[in-house]
Amino acid sequence: MEKKIPYKIYLEEQEMPRQWYNVRADMKKKPAPILNPGTLEPITFEELSGIFCEELARQELDENTRYFDIPEEIRNFYKMYRPSPLVRAYCLEEKLDTPAHIYYKFEGNNTSGSHKLNSAIAQVYYGKKQGLKGVTTETGAGQWGTALSMACSYFGLDCQVFMVKCSYEQKPFRREVMRTYGAKVTPSPSMETKVGRKMNEEFPGTTGSLGCAISEAVEAALSQEGYRYVLGSVLAQVLLHQSIIGLETKAALDKYGIRPHMIIGCAGGGSNLGGLISPFAGEILRGEADYKLIAVEPASCPSLTRGVYAYDFCDTGKVCPLAKMYTLGSSFIPSANHAGGLRYHGMSSTVSELYAQGLIEARSVEQIEVFKAAETFARIEGILPAPESSHAIKAAIDEAIQCRESGEEKNIVFGLTGTGYFDLTAYQKYNDGEMEDYVPTDEQLRQSICGLPKVEIE
Amino acid sequence: MEKKIPYKIYLEEQEMPRQWYNVRADMKKKPAPILNPGTLEPITFEELSGIFCEELARQELDENTRYFDIPEEIRNFYKMYRPSPLVRAYCLEEKLDTPAHIYYKFEGNNTSGSHKLNSAIAQVYYGKKQGLKGVTTETGAGQWGTALSMACSYFGLDCQVFMVKCSYEQKPFRREVMRTYGAKVTPSPSMETKVGRKMNEEFPGTTGSLGCAISEAVEAALSQEGYRYVLGSVLAQVLLHQSIIGLETKAALDKYGIRPHMIIGCAGGGSNLGGLISPFAGEILRGEADYKLIAVEPASCPSLTRGVYAYDFCDTGKVCPLAKMYTLGSSFIPSANHAGGLRYHGMSSTVSELYAQGLIEARSVEQIEVFKAAETFARIEGILPAPESSHAIKAAIDEAIQCRESGEEKNIVFGLTGTGYFDLTAYQKYNDGEMEDYVPTDEQLRQSICGLPKVEIE
Repeated sequence: MEKKIPYKIYLEEQEMPRQWYNVRADMKKKPAPILNPGTLEPITFEELSGIFCEELARQELDENTRYFDIPEEIRNFYKMYRPSPLVRAYCLEEKLDTPAHIYYKFEGNNTSGSHKLNSAIAQVYYGKKQGLKGVTTETGAGQWGTALSMACSYFGLDCQVFMVKCSYEQKPFRREVMRTYGAKVTPSPSMETKVGRKMNEEFPGTTGSLGCAISEAVEAALSQEGYRYVLGSVLAQVLLHQSIIGLETKAALDKYGIRPHMIIGCAGGGSNLGGLISPFAGEILRGEADYKLIAVEPASCPSLTRGVYAYDFCDTGKVCPLAKMYTLGSSFIPSANHAGGLRYHGMSSTVSELYAQGLIEARSVEQIEVFKAAETFARIEGILPAPESSHAIKAAIDEAIQCRESGEEKNIVFGLTGTGYFDLTAYQKYNDGEMEDYVPTDEQLRQSICGLPKVEIE
Repeated sequence: MEKKIPYKIYLEEQEMPRQWYNVRADMKKKPAPILNPGTLEPITFEELSGIFCEELARQELDENTRYFDIPEEIRNFYKMYRPSPLVRAYCLEEKLDTPAHIYYKFEGNNTSGSHKLNSAIAQVYYGKKQGLKGVTTETGAGQWGTALSMACSYFGLDCQVFMVKCSYEQKPFRREVMRTYGAKVTPSPSMETKVGRKMNEEFPGTTGSLGCAISEAVEAALSQEGYRYVLGSVLAQVLLHQSIIGLETKAALDKYGIRPHMIIGCAGGGSNLGGLISPFAGEILRGEADYKLIAVEPASCPSLTRGVYAYDFCDTGKVCPLAKMYTLGSSFIPSANHAGGLRYHGMSSTVSELYAQGLIEARSVEQIEVFKAAETFARIEGILPAPESSHAIKAAIDEAIQCRESGEEKNIVFGLTGTGYFDLTAYQKYNDGEMEDYVPTDEQLRQSICGLPKVEIE
């Protein structure tokens, strides 16, 4: 008998996952190994643990352990803002007049405003356990930096964030949230690192780039005793921690006997998408079930739909390990697209390999239609979504409208990664009719892709 | 047997209240009636329904009906963001090393960012049912305007918000949220009303005041066919709708057999405090239980602790009904206190009468210590609180520290009304050490209070 489905499905505390799931364990063909940027050979545990703390390096390199216990301290922190609700979008269904059932997993109900906190708290916990004094990172749009500052504040670690200068100046409120959590926020390029001073000298007045901020953060970590660098997306360890999203989603669906036909996630570096789809992809890989898994990316930064699958640097500064991934080339400069979190040139190598194996389909959407979907969703479901998340909303609405036309009663599940409270400059542009679409030309992509490093592996 | 108490207590959908509670029904001595500003006589239903829609006028004047059914349409809207969690602040307790158990009812998990949505949706629903085309209102800090724009968007009513010009300019993001929900936001004083044009003529370059914005909103409502004016605090109808906060809190506590020793709320116009304490005050009034009820107000605007209990105008423009309340005088201009929502010169007449009868105790706190409590709370409990809400946090922390000293295992419950994502200018001042305390002198209060209207009622 089908139970009446409430507007919001909350798991009980005792139903919360106690382990993360490592989807690589169920992949017959594994993602290609990450490479040492100096030698271009697969990176060793010893090399990797100079950048990341040991347990994280271990998680990064472990392709075979299916489940990792979530330490009790992390589970207690999760209890402050998790389980996040799986929401049945009754109002949106009614408005769209669709027979489809729409569900979204909402990760924005915490002060960092997004899912990034799920991995930030894990990374900081392991750093603390190893006896680190602090961590360094970079932030662009600011969601990751905010999440990291919250996690560091909780476990008492020093937090140094290099924030791309134009964001630092244009998003002063993001900066203040981080400062309220005790983080040191430095506009990048700064005068505190060699690479920053060099940039400021060569390009006076530069407003910075993510690539430079990463280089500054890595340099700062390596030059301070007891510090490590941390990263909020792309890595396998991040997908592992973010699997909590998918595990909770699956538990909530199972609780009410709901079988999803498709799972939709926005895709930047792949942290949310990978975490959301992991347990479902695992079932497909084990031959237990079949789902349509859909990645939605901005047309302005289309790594899956228009990139190539090859080894590339993860950062423009070329100091981080190389990964085999769908990439537009590390020199690709995305346009001034407001979905800041989706402006990454590459894609998690696990997501990339799943895509290459045909488990995921990808589509790209343009910015103005994304904001139109965001506006519709905000007005009907009462949540102002982040621009990033709104890519998934757009695809979910499209699918629901198709169901209206076909009469199919499909179960559509999508990830609502965060809220748009710090993205109102973009909303203002949309409200004022001043937003523009942007799609790179084939020639632009050809130029950035032709500079890929030559790697002999495989 | 005591059940293990989870970090967050969520009621099931079927446990949600189906009726609002009208605390006046249990008061032997009722709050004094509101008066027609023209005649200074108790206002009639006919007079009141020219300003508010009929059902709301009825609710406003009904002192005797104990419970009002919540219409199904409103209950369905509530289900999108309610029940709100009652959170056990385990982490805060540990940090304070207190034997006290601390609980907070969190009303900030919706895009309007506060409890204001509980009444906005009700007021708009009744307006829609009466066939109105739209509503007008004023907003200062912006929480009420945002909530109203969300409610109007949901029910398809036109929404006109007069936003105090300095807020309009200093809080552009609040304005953009309202615009995203389709509201027309006009900086006040505007050139669209007589009173606005007069103000702009007499005081060129003025940045406006709440009093002027109210007058503009009332004029706009009266001059448009099918429009009514709505108000987000102070009124009895607002306390009725906000009783959902207290009813849910009580149901969640009862579910786990928890008996609160005290209920703490921040107090501006009284909408949150009144709603939170209503069911508990009812039990006290009926002789069924005893609780300590604590109102916390800013030292910069101390209506309960330093005001007089007398009839006064609810607005500086003197167009709204008069109410008997604790007041600093409608000419009182609060200092530049950042807790915008608590800058009201008066206090809900129901809360005022409960205070006069000794059911509530009041205390005032200064701004810097409020932000210090906010910072502590944000870092430990992971939620960035609104400055208004932080007044209650400050009092709860003080009580928990007293319990540490006395060794008492008290149950402390407080209302966390909202989030501070749009208050980061204030946080920045605090972070930079540039925040100042302000307490009005006795002479300042004497001057604003001596101008109270002469009313012969009673």
